[in-house]
Amino acid sequence: MTGEQRWAIAEGYIPEGSHGPEPEMTSHETVCILNTNDEDAHVEITVYFTDREPVGPYEVTVPAERTKHVRFNNLEDPEPVPKGTPFASTIESDVPVVCQHTRLDSRQAENALLTTVPYGAE
Amino acid sequence: MTGEQRWAIAEGYIPEGSHGPEPEMTSHETVCILNTNDEDAHVEITVYFTDREPVGPYEVTVPAERTKHVRFNNLEDPEPVPKGTPFASTIESDVPVVCQHTRLDSRQAENALLTTVPYGAE
Amino acid sequence: MTGEQRWAIAEGYIPEGSHGPEPEMTSHETVCILNTNDEDAHVEITVYFTDREPVGPYEVTVPAERTKHVRFNNLEDPEPVPKGTPFASTIESDVPVVCQHTRLDSRQAENALLTTVPYGAE
Amino acid sequence: MTGEQRWAIAEGYIPEGSHGPEPEMTSHETVCILNTNDEDAHVEITVYFTDREPVGPYEVTVPAERTKHVRFNNLEDPEPVPKGTPFASTIESDVPVVCQHTRLDSRQAENALLTTVPYGAE
Repeated sequence: MTGEQRWAIAEGYIPEGSHGPEPEMTSHETVCILNTNDEDAHVEITVYFTDREPVGPYEVTVPAERTKHVRFNNLEDPEPVPKGTPFASTIESDVPVVCQHTRLDSRQAENALLTTVPYGAE
Repeated sequence: MTGEQRWAIAEGYIPEGSHGPEPEMTSHETVCILNTNDEDAHVEITVYFTDREPVGPYEVTVPAERTKHVRFNNLEDPEPVPKGTPFASTIESDVPVVCQHTRLDSRQAENALLTTVPYGAE
Repeated sequence: MTGEQRWAIAEGYIPEGSHGPEPEMTSHETVCILNTNDEDAHVEITVYFTDREPVGPYEVTVPAERTKHVRFNNLEDPEPVPKGTPFASTIESDVPVVCQHTRLDSRQAENALLTTVPYGAE
Repeated sequence: MTGEQRWAIAEGYIPEGSHGPEPEMTSHETVCILNTNDEDAHVEITVYFTDREPVGPYEVTVPAERTKHVRFNNLEDPEPVPKGTPFASTIESDVPVVCQHTRLDSRQAENALLTTVPYGAE
C-alpha cells in the first residue's frame, strides 16, 4: 500500500467562527496524509483561488510510517489561507502517499462534518 | 495534476428553505471545479431528472489556474434548476479538470454537510 | 460519460425513527443511479448482512437519460430491508451507470447527511 | 464484484464523549468491509499515528458473502485505539473486499456523520 504522488482537492473553505472548546471543536479544513513508506514524504501544497494567482508551495514533511493531519487554518508560509473564501488545492509528494479531505464546521451550535478521498493520480 | 474531462454526479438536490445569514448559510448544492491548466476550461453541465428530458448545457468557464464553486441554485440559462426535486448531472470540459460535489443543508436550525468526489472518466 | 456496470456499497444502515415532515425529512438510505445511455438500465440490487444469507435481487429500471433515487426503505420485493441493522449492497446493471450513496439521518432534531461515490468496477 | 486487497484510510479519529442511547448513538469510527466472495476474508488492520510506531495487525475475519462493520472503538488486540487522537489505517485482505469509512460524531447534542470510500489498490 503506497498511494499516489499527486492529489487534488477541488473544494476548500475555512468557516469563519466556531462553537465549542478549542482546538478540537474549532472549525477547520484538513487534509490527512498517510505515509506508509519507510522514507519521509516531502509534500508541497498549492492553494488555488477564484480570482487571483495560486499561492504556494506550502511545505510539509510526513515522516516514514506516520500520518499527519494538516489543518489549512495553520498554514502560514508563504501566507495564511484566508477564512470565509472558497479555494482548492493540490498536494504533490516525492513518494506515494494517501490523502483524505475533512472539514469540521462548528459555526452553529452543532457540528457538521464532511470527508472524501480527493482525486489522485500517479 | 490535470484531472478528467468528464464527470458525473448521480445525486443532486437543492433543499427548499434555509436558516442563517445569506448567502453563506443558504442551502446549496455545489460542484467545485479546479482548473490547474494554463488555459481556460470551457465546461458544459447537463442536468438529468427522474421524469423528463435532460436540460442543458449550462455553460461555465473556469479560468486557467483558478477554481470555481458553481452553485446549482444560481444556474439560470437555459432554465433554473428546480428546488426540492431530485436530479443528477454530468460535467464535460474541453481540458482536464478536477470536480468535487458539496451540499450545505440548512433547512433545520443546524447545518448538515456532505461532499464527495464524483465519478470521473477521461 | 457512461459509468460502470457493477458497484458496491459497503456501508448501509436505515436509522429507526425520524424528525420533521415526511417524506423529505424521513431518515433514509439512498442509492442514486444515473443512466446517461439512450437505452433503459435494468438494475439488480443485492443486500448483504452480517449474519445471514444475502437477499435479492431487488429489480429496478432506470429509464434512458433519467436518474432514479432509490430508497432502501422502499424496497419490498423479495422482502423489506430491516431498519436499525447494518447491511451492504451491490448494484449490477446491464448498461453502464453512475451511482452515489446518500443517507439522511433525522433521528435527532437536526439532520446529519453523508454521501459518497461507491466502489465501481466494469 | 470483488474489490481490492489493499485499502488505506488517511483520516481516523474516535471522538471523546457521546450523546444519546448506546451503542447506536455512541461516537464511533468504523470501517465497513463487504466480502462478496464465496470464501472467508482474513483481514489485517494496521493503525498509523503522528508520533509513534504503527500498531497491528488487528485481525478480523469477514465470512463469505457477509459484511462486517468494524468499530475502531472495539479493537483491543494488540492494544485499544486511543480516543481523541488522530490516526490513519490500512486494511489488507487475502481476498478482494470493498471498504467504506464512516464516523458518527455525537459529542454534541446533534449528530454529525461522514463517510467515504477509502483509497483502494489491488
